Formats: sequence, C-alpha cells, structure tokens
Amino acid sequence: MIKVAIIGASGYTGSESIQILLRHEQAELTYLTALPEECGAVEDVFPQFKGRCPLQIEPLDLDKLSELADVALCCLPHKVSMGFVPKLLDAGVKVIDFSADYRLKDVDVYEKYYVKHTDTENLMHAAFGLPELFRERIKGASLVANPGCYPTGASLAVAPLLKKGLIETENVIVNSVTGSSGAGMKPSSKFHFPNMNENLFPYGIGTHRHMPEIEQIMTDVVGKKVTVLFQPHVGSFDRGILSTVYCQPKTKLSDEDLSKLYHDFYQDEPFVQVRKDAPAVKDVAGTNYCHIFVACVKGKIVCFSAIDNLVKGASGQAIQNMNIIFGLEEALGLK
Amino acid sequence: MIKVAIIGASGYTGSESIQILLRHEQAELTYLTALPEECGAVEDVFPQFKGRCPLQIEPLDLDKLSELADVALCCLPHKVSMGFVPKLLDAGVKVIDFSADYRLKDVDVYEKYYVKHTDTENLMHAAFGLPELFRERIKGASLVANPGCYPTGASLAVAPLLKKGLIETENVIVNSVTGSSGAGMKPSSKFHFPNMNENLFPYGIGTHRHMPEIEQIMTDVVGKKVTVLFQPHVGSFDRGILSTVYCQPKTKLSDEDLSKLYHDFYQDEPFVQVRKDAPAVKDVAGTNYCHIFVACVKGKIVCFSAIDNLVKGASGQAIQNMNIIFGLEEALGLK
Amino acid sequence: MIKVAIIGASGYTGSESIQILLRHEQAELTYLTALPEECGAVEDVFPQFKGRCPLQIEPLDLDKLSELADVALCCLPHKVSMGFVPKLLDAGVKVIDFSADYRLKDVDVYEKYYVKHTDTENLMHAAFGLPELFRERIKGASLVANPGCYPTGASLAVAPLLKKGLIETENVIVNSVTGSSGAGMKPSSKFHFPNMNENLFPYGIGTHRHMPEIEQIMTDVVGKKVTVLFQPHVGSFDRGILSTVYCQPKTKLSDEDLSKLYHDFYQDEPFVQVRKDAPAVKDVAGTNYCHIFVACVKGKIVCFSAIDNLVKGASGQAIQNMNIIFGLEEALGLK
Amino acid sequence: MIKVAIIGASGYTGSESIQILLRHEQAELTYLTALPEECGAVEDVFPQFKGRCPLQIEPLDLDKLSELADVALCCLPHKVSMGFVPKLLDAGVKVIDFSADYRLKDVDVYEKYYVKHTDTENLMHAAFGLPELFRERIKGASLVANPGCYPTGASLAVAPLLKKGLIETENVIVNSVTGSSGAGMKPSSKFHFPNMNENLFPYGIGTHRHMPEIEQIMTDVVGKKVTVLFQPHVGSFDRGILSTVYCQPKTKLSDEDLSKLYHDFYQDEPFVQVRKDAPAVKDVAGTNYCHIFVACVKGKIVCFSAIDNLVKGASGQAIQNMNIIFGLEEALGLK
Repeated sequence: MIKVAIIGASGYTGSESIQILLRHEQAELTYLTALPEECGAVEDVFPQFKGRCPLQIEPLDLDKLSELADVALCCLPHKVSMGFVPKLLDAGVKVIDFSADYRLKDVDVYEKYYVKHTDTENLMHAAFGLPELFRERIKGASLVANPGCYPTGASLAVAPLLKKGLIETENVIVNSVTGSSGAGMKPSSKFHFPNMNENLFPYGIGTHRHMPEIEQIMTDVVGKKVTVLFQPHVGSFDRGILSTVYCQPKTKLSDEDLSKLYHDFYQDEPFVQVRKDAPAVKDVAGTNYCHIFVACVKGKIVCFSAIDNLVKGASGQAIQNMNIIFGLEEALGLK
Repeated sequence: MIKVAIIGASGYTGSESIQILLRHEQAELTYLTALPEECGAVEDVFPQFKGRCPLQIEPLDLDKLSELADVALCCLPHKVSMGFVPKLLDAGVKVIDFSADYRLKDVDVYEKYYVKHTDTENLMHAAFGLPELFRERIKGASLVANPGCYPTGASLAVAPLLKKGLIETENVIVNSVTGSSGAGMKPSSKFHFPNMNENLFPYGIGTHRHMPEIEQIMTDVVGKKVTVLFQPHVGSFDRGILSTVYCQPKTKLSDEDLSKLYHDFYQDEPFVQVRKDAPAVKDVAGTNYCHIFVACVKGKIVCFSAIDNLVKGASGQAIQNMNIIFGLEEALGLK
Repeated sequence: MIKVAIIGASGYTGSESIQILLRHEQAELTYLTALPEECGAVEDVFPQFKGRCPLQIEPLDLDKLSELADVALCCLPHKVSMGFVPKLLDAGVKVIDFSADYRLKDVDVYEKYYVKHTDTENLMHAAFGLPELFRERIKGASLVANPGCYPTGASLAVAPLLKKGLIETENVIVNSVTGSSGAGMKPSSKFHFPNMNENLFPYGIGTHRHMPEIEQIMTDVVGKKVTVLFQPHVGSFDRGILSTVYCQPKTKLSDEDLSKLYHDFYQDEPFVQVRKDAPAVKDVAGTNYCHIFVACVKGKIVCFSAIDNLVKGASGQAIQNMNIIFGLEEALGLK
Repeated sequence: MIKVAIIGASGYTGSESIQILLRHEQAELTYLTALPEECGAVEDVFPQFKGRCPLQIEPLDLDKLSELADVALCCLPHKVSMGFVPKLLDAGVKVIDFSADYRLKDVDVYEKYYVKHTDTENLMHAAFGLPELFRERIKGASLVANPGCYPTGASLAVAPLLKKGLIETENVIVNSVTGSSGAGMKPSSKFHFPNMNENLFPYGIGTHRHMPEIEQIMTDVVGKKVTVLFQPHVGSFDRGILSTVYCQPKTKLSDEDLSKLYHDFYQDEPFVQVRKDAPAVKDVAGTNYCHIFVACVKGKIVCFSAIDNLVKGASGQAIQNMNIIFGLEEALGLK
C-alpha cells in the first residue's frame, strides 16, 4: 500500500486528488497539508467528502511527512512550490509536483515567464510526467513535474505527427478552450458567476505560460525546435479542455493515413482514445481519458483533443505518474 | 426630458438602469457616480456599453447633482444609502432608493435585521414603490423606496387573494429561487463560477431580510397581520426569481374562480401577465414583466410568479416608479 | 462475483449504472440490452465509455439473460416495465426495477396516475427499495421496486420526524427542484438547450406521479395516512434534486432537538449525512449521498435534502439494493 | 412608418426580429407568417411576448402580404427560402432573406454545399447584406441576402487587413465557437440539455457551409481569391460567437500599427467597436455590436471578434439592412 501525502490539499487539484485516491486499491491517503487558515477536517473544507474521508488537513510538518508518506503530491502554486520541493525530497518522499516550477528545462525561459528559479539542481533531475510520451523517464524518478493541462491536451493531439516527422515544425497553431475550474479556487471578478456564466473569451494573448511548455514538449518529441502559437480561451463550463491544433503536413496525407497513424501510435495507451468522430469535453469530464480526432482540411491537418483539465490535466495524471513510479498497474484508481 | 442621475452606478443595478435609460424616450442619463476606485468611462467600467454611452462615472458632487439631475436612482447598499439620501434630497432631486433603508416602516424591525436607523424622518415619508399595489402613494413622492426583488415577486403572486380576504393570513409559505445576479458584483467563494455552476442551495434559513418586508407588504394589502415563512434559494442562472407560494384558502375555490380573480385584479396592469400555464424565468428575463399562474392543489392554493430580479425586481421597477412620479406614461422605456 | 444485466441500458440510468458497476469489486456487468435501434457497442452508444467497457448492447434474449446474469437492473420506462419483469423473474434472475410499476401498492392509485396494471401478482411481492427506511424487506427479495428520485430525497428529509410522530401528518409540503437529466434522453422542446438553459419552471402542478409515491412512503413510515402537497420544478443544471419540505410540529422543537434527532436516526447510515449547514446539489453530484439539514423557522420545521437524481435517486440506490439483496457490504462500489 | 412582415416567424430569428421591431420607432410589425402547425397568437407561440405583441402568426397569404407590408424579413430555412422569395418579390415587397439561398454568387459552390438552385435570376441581383463592407450595394436593393452568423464575425475581424493587402490570402484560419441558439428551435439529441450542458465540441469538420461564404466575402474585400480554413465549435451558452482568426502578415506589423488600422477602418461604424482588450461574448449578447481585438503573436496576427449570433449574426443585421434600404438612420431600433 503506497502512502500518499497531499501538500496544498485545499484547492481543486487537492480535492480531485483526494477523490481519486479514495478509490485507489493500492494507495492510501495518509497526510494532508495546507496553509494554517485553510486547515480543518476534510469534510468541512470540502463538503462533498462528508462521511467519506476522516482525515484532517493540517499545517505541513516535515517530520510527520517523512514518517507518514512514501510520496507527496505537491499541489502548491507556481513559484511557491520550488521553495518546498527540496524539503519534501529531503524528507525522503518521492514528489510529484503540480506547479510549473520543474517543467521548463531552460531556466531562462522559466525566468522570463515566472520568476528567478531557486532550485535549479532539482530542476535538472525532474522527469516530465507525460507518460504517453516520456514513460521511461518517469519510472523510478524521485521528482516528477506533472504537466500543465493545456500542454497535455495539445501535445497528445499532435504527437504522432511530430514523432513521424510528418508536419512542419514552424507555425503549429494551438487554439484551446478550457472550463473555469482551471482558474483555481480564488474568487475573482472574471470568474464571478454572473460575469463568467454564458460567457466565452480569450486570454493570455501572446503571453500564456503554457506556450513555452508546449514548445518544449513538442521539440522534445520531434528532436528539433518546434514553434507554437498557443491561444487559450475560457468558457462557462466547469471541466474540460478542447484543443484544436492546426498544422501543415509536409506531404499529402489522407484521412485514412491519419487514422491509422494515430491508432497505431496510441494502441497500447490505456488513456488515449482515437475517435471516429469529433471529441466532446463532456465525454471525458471526470475521467483520465484523452479523446482525439484528426482530419485533413484544405491542405492542413486539424487535430482535436479533449481532456478533463483537473484529471488528465492535473490530478489524474499525477496518480498515473505515481503508479508508474511505484511500478503499479498504470491505470489503478483511474478507470 | 427628465434628467436622471445614478448614484452608485458601478454595480449590476446601475448597469441595468443605464441599459434601460439609454432607450427611454423622455428621460436622459446626465450624471453617474460611484466610489472613486470604481470610476471611469462607462464603456470601460461596463464593456457592453462600448460605443453606446459617452458618459463618465465620477465621484459624487452634490452641486453637480443639483445642477444636472431631476431625479436620482440611488443604487447604494443597505446601511450606506441612508447616509446619502438626505443629502440627495437636500440637493433638490427626487430619490428612488434601491436599498432596504426606506422600506421597513417599523424602525425596530429594520434595526433587528440591519443596523440602527439614522434617517427615520425621511423613512416616515418614503413611499413604498410597488406600483401594482401602491400606485397612488408613489405619484408625486419625493422619496420612493424601491422594493426588494423577492418581495416584489412574492407579493404580486398572492396579492389578489389577500386583497379579497380569501386566504388565511397565517402560514403563508414563500419558496423562492433566484438567479445569481442577486448576489451583486463582489466576488465571493459561494459565487465563484466553479462553485456556483451546476449548483442550487438554500440560504438565509429563517433569517433572510426580505421576510419582514414581504410580511409588511402583505399586511398592508390585507389590512391585518400576515405571517410569512420565506425560504430563498439560489440557482446557477443569471437572472430571474421564481416564487412558489403556498397558502390556505378560507373557502373552497376552483381553478376557474382563481383565474377570474387574477385576471380581473391585474387586467389594467401593463407589467403583470396572468398565464394559462406555468411561468418560467426565461420568459421574463430582461423584461419588466411579472408572469403569474395560480392553481388549487390538495386543498391549498399554489401561486407561482416569475420576474427578472434586476428589472422588475430592481432597475425596471425603479424606472416604472420614476415614470409615475413624473406623470409619464408608466411603461415608457420598459416595453 | 455477482453477474449483472442491465435491461434498457441505452438511457441515462443505464449509463449511470454501467459507470458504477465498472468500479464494483464484487459485481461484473455481463449482459446489456436495449431496443434493436438503440443497440451497438457500449462505447459507440456512450462515447464516455470508449476504451472502458468492451460490451455490446444487444436486443433482449431471455435465454442469454438466464445464462449470463444473477440479477437484472430493469431500466425500462413506466408501463413498459411490467410487461418484461415477469419474464425476467421467470428467467431466474433477481430484478431491481427502476420504473414506477412496482412501487405503488394500491393498484387503484397506480391506475389513476398511469395505466391498467398487468402484473399485480408480482406487485404484491415487490419490496420497496429505500434501504434507509425499509432495509429488512429488501434482504433476499426477488423483486425490488427502486424508488423514484423525488420520493427518495423528500422521504429521507422528513423520515425522522414522521417516525417519532413529531409532526402533523396533514399538510406536508414538498417543494423540489431537479436537474434536467431527470427528463430522460428523449429530446423535447422544453429540454432543448436554448430553451432550458438559464431557465427554471414548475411543472406537474397538482398532478405529478411522485405525489402518491411520497405519500405512500411517509404513510408507511408513520403508520398513519400522510397527506402531501408535492410541487416539482426543473432547473438548468444536469444533476441533483434539492427538496425543501415544510411541516408542522406537534410540539415545539429546538434546532438542537432536531439536530440530535436526525444524527441519531441516521448515525449508522453510510449514505445519509446530516449537515450543520445548508446542503447543496453540487456537493452530492455524482455520489450516492443524501445531505440533510433541518431547522425551525416561524413555528414550522423546514427540512432540506440534496441527492443526485441519477445516483441516490436511481442507479446508485439500485446498486445499494443489489448489495443488500446479495448480502454484500452495502456501500460496495458506491463510496 | 415602414410596415414589416416576417415570413417564418416561429423560430429564434423570428422572435428576435419581433423583439427588435417592437422597439423600432419608424417601423411596425404588420404581418407574421409560419407553417400552419406553428401558427397562433404571438404570445402563445412565444410566452416572452405575453402582453407585448397583439399579433397573430398566420399561414402565408401573398395578397395580405402585398397589402400589409413594405418589406419582408424571410426567416425560412436554406433550400426552402428560394421557393418563396420570388413570390414575395412579386407581391411587391422588398425582401431581406436570412437563408443561404442568395448569399453564394457562384451557383456551383451553392449546389455543392446545398442543392440545385432554383432561382438563379434573383440570386444575381441580390445584395450581400454586410453593411460595414458592402453598404453601397444594399441601398435601394430589392433583395438582400442577410449574411451567415459565422461569416459576419469572421469577416469583420479581418477585413481591415484584407482591404489594405497586409496579409497573405492563403491559409487564413478561422476558429469559431458559437452558442447553442445557432442550432435553431428543432430539438435534437446533440442539443438536448443534459447532453449539451457543460459541453463543447467541434462540428462540421472540413464541411461547414459557411466556409465558402467566408471565402467569398474575403475574396470580395481583397479582390483576389482568399483561401480559408474554417472550424466551428459549439459551446454550452445561449448566444454569441467568438471567432479567433489566425493570419500571416506580409510585412511586420506592430500592435500599434494594427490598433490604428482598425480604429481608422471602423471609426464611423455604429456597430463595430475596436477594443483595447479581449472581447467577450457576454459583452455583446443581446446587442447588434461586434467587438474586435487584434494582436501580433509569434509572427502571426491573431484577430478576435465577438457578436451575438441572433442579433448582429441574424435579426439585428437584417434590421440594419432594412434601415439602409429605406434610407432610415442605420442604427434605428438597434442601440
């Protein structure tokens, strides 16, 4: 039985992780932490767990962590996380980090989009936790950087084409729409219900932090610099990301070629499903699945993917990574 | 041309009032005020007015108000409003106040539910602005207390029965569901989109401030103390209140009796429509109408009403009151 | 391992049952049936199961049922179900029926609200499957009538008061709001997205078929005829029922009395949670839980309950009943 | 006073046209028609008009049309419309047609996407009713083809760049998300509330009929064949289209260049607003406005536009066209 701690358990990714782990047959939640003002019984912090989880959320105590857990899901925000991860590792637990702090291998890029990096040593050793593309690196890793939600959906949509060198590596356009839970739990004017409801708008125009992360993944897959224009939008639904990726084939490909390519590429993957028709965010909501469809349109290739941003885009993928690290069946707790 | 100021124009009732007044043929917006930190061009504060309203929202200056306006719609919050209304009246304008500060005639009741009342003199003279029930009092009033959203819908639903003395005055049960815009513009955890979306819950159990207001209106209509149990709920939609009122008839009434009673009672009212079927909040959204249906069920009478909480429940009713005060056609700007 | 068939698997309660059973450790789906035109691979009928369920939905073959299943969840509609249940029982399987056909013990009442009953013999032996109130009758039953969604929520909200004889048995008022999935999968104008979205309305005024079912349950609990006025509404959300029940105490009860009564009554129930604050449908969405809160207001008692209409109100409760019938741990697959 | 008929008044564009015309100071609704089974009092067909519109919707009688109307808004579906428009014109009224039947000037293209065209003569004379781009052609026209909703938003987003020859005419990518009202009033499984709610999905992949219409408009603007890849999506909100257009500049342009270009191009347009920040569908819902923002990102230009698909994308634009045809102030009834 793997003993799991959640550091920063009081947000949406924390509650989603609790939800998944309550059903996991070979892992058990042993320790939950948050800032002092967000502590309390799980069932008080998250009424949906009333009667389902007897644990308390407590302020972090590294000795308790060391004693109680084999692995920590670190759900702290960007910039904060790198202040804690070294301590968590020192406490002798494996760490799966949800923040961006260990994702971008190029420190300059990180520092351009975030702040000065204070833990470059662990950054060098962190495995990027997108199992379908980098499974081997995750096995046995001490620190896994859990990917961003957008990068997960966008990369899976286009990976087979990149891997086979079938598309131009410049001018990949990623147009995504996310549900509102991606914004986190902190109330704000944009996400105030009467403002967000019945709404849809773009944001982060030209500046979104997931743009370099998507480029890094794609570059890694193809072995050559990939340039990506990433444009996110947010819509009035809770969960899900639909990514529509436009790319330029090097040679003419038929819909049949594409379908075969994708089915072959993902045939052994438990969580990637290549569809015969368009994916829909509702079909993957609450699951760890990624639904993909791809088509030739007007000389371009259009790739669609749908994931749940809180599951495959965060907590589900983290548990998938945890299963890999510990040599468990990869889909445990996630089917 | 009536010159209209809006005091506290930066919230939902402010923007709704602007929206209505932009279409009003015999009134024009001349002056908009808000707290300094909420000021700016209308089209910057409310992007939906881009290109539609050239005005600025400015900090309140009583001299400018006096010069520029005939009437002020005072959209300030409860407790704050009574600090300003005397000054607005002194500036020589009529005032239609959206807060609760001039609604409850019994100061003790007000002080139980709110705070110490600091302007009891004007309170005594304020007209309660529910035109369908108290139109005569509104004509020529200097200060009108614009009713609460719930009290408007609930009272119109049951007024014909009360007026004719057909129901018991104890144990009137008002069960209401409001859209989320009733919560105002300030972000909060409850109304954070991922929390409020796909949700429905009761609140203010036994303590909602509209309970005494509903009782006051009903008591006024029937001329005898009416006791009301009012239970509000909030649902995941923007606009509208559906009130379901359960009451006990003194004598047996048929559905036909009820239908005739209601049609007769409301036949000359421009904004109350007695339906042949169940009302729906979407049918009244964005309008100043109140849709009503009434039926006998199991020896009780069940009355349903639907209004838009921001229009008939706030800004539309205020303009209706303004039209009455100034002797204009009552429906101007509201059809 | 219990082998489970679903008869009429192509609707919302069918897919919800599949969802739950995929996670059940001691039951396995073995046979799924539907009308010929609704058959096909599960993952084609319900794209959310792509890669998760290899079964086919086939036309019903009683020999196959007999061979493949120990129990059938019968998700057929009212009136249709009683034509099939005798055959399912003859095939040697236990039956948990989701329709109203075996719920109402008084054939005259059934025939008033539905049609002529054609299987009164099995009706007499059917157990009413609300475990928290009638667990003993369910154990070992061959045929369980799975309760309606509204009756489940309403009855649990008020059962402790009825059981202890603390409220008047006349004039219980049940005001409920359901999410739209209660309407089933058949498209209609009322539930067409642009009509239903941002909407809320009452329906079934004085005529809803769950009214006599609620009365039957409450009468059974208290041992004396209970009269109920039940008014349902539908709101623009997918899942959940919030019931607000107004009743008249025989003697004065404090909030503390009520709290203690409810905690004691439900203390051993795995799926009923008595809250300290108002329940919300989002807290129970996707779960088999019923959240309850109760308060004294103006001399009446107001009871609130929230359930997921598709889980505790249908498929989850059916699995709970299945667990009881077969002597399994009652919460298996449902936590 | 312009007398206006609506042919096919029983759908969403019909009701939206009624809504606008009820407020129009120089036009009055005189005649409403629909299929016999959809006829009745306006307030019965559309409960939101109860007490607001005394008209009946009747089966079409060309003599009555001729007598009662100056202009007909023809809200019939594609393929059906061209069977009626010649008769409407023969009845002596101007026609503004909402269908696609008179939009595509190339009959072959029309016939590829729709059916055989049966009224090519009127097709030749029809003016394409996008005032911001083709105002002169609309003045005095007898027949105006009201543009599609997607083409309106997409074309306005990119027109200044095309007009000035600043972007490549190949590889314009239009990614749009529409609200659900674009699907029309006919219930279907995809738009059944429990399926559509909380959902988002692409459709019409490579085949949407608005693709050639967008190409025709853009080609017309630039005077040279423009190739467009158009990908529509539908989201779970009522109203609005957000279009995100990706294009390739011929020379480097700064954000300032773009802003100035757009402000200059649209400075006299009453309904196009160039924003300083990202547009949002909620800001234009219920209005005839188009909000636009444009930015340079990674060597491409990304143009965003938001419109209400039922207003600027249909009924509002039709009234705007009507105002132009009859020499009225263009914004009458639409502010």
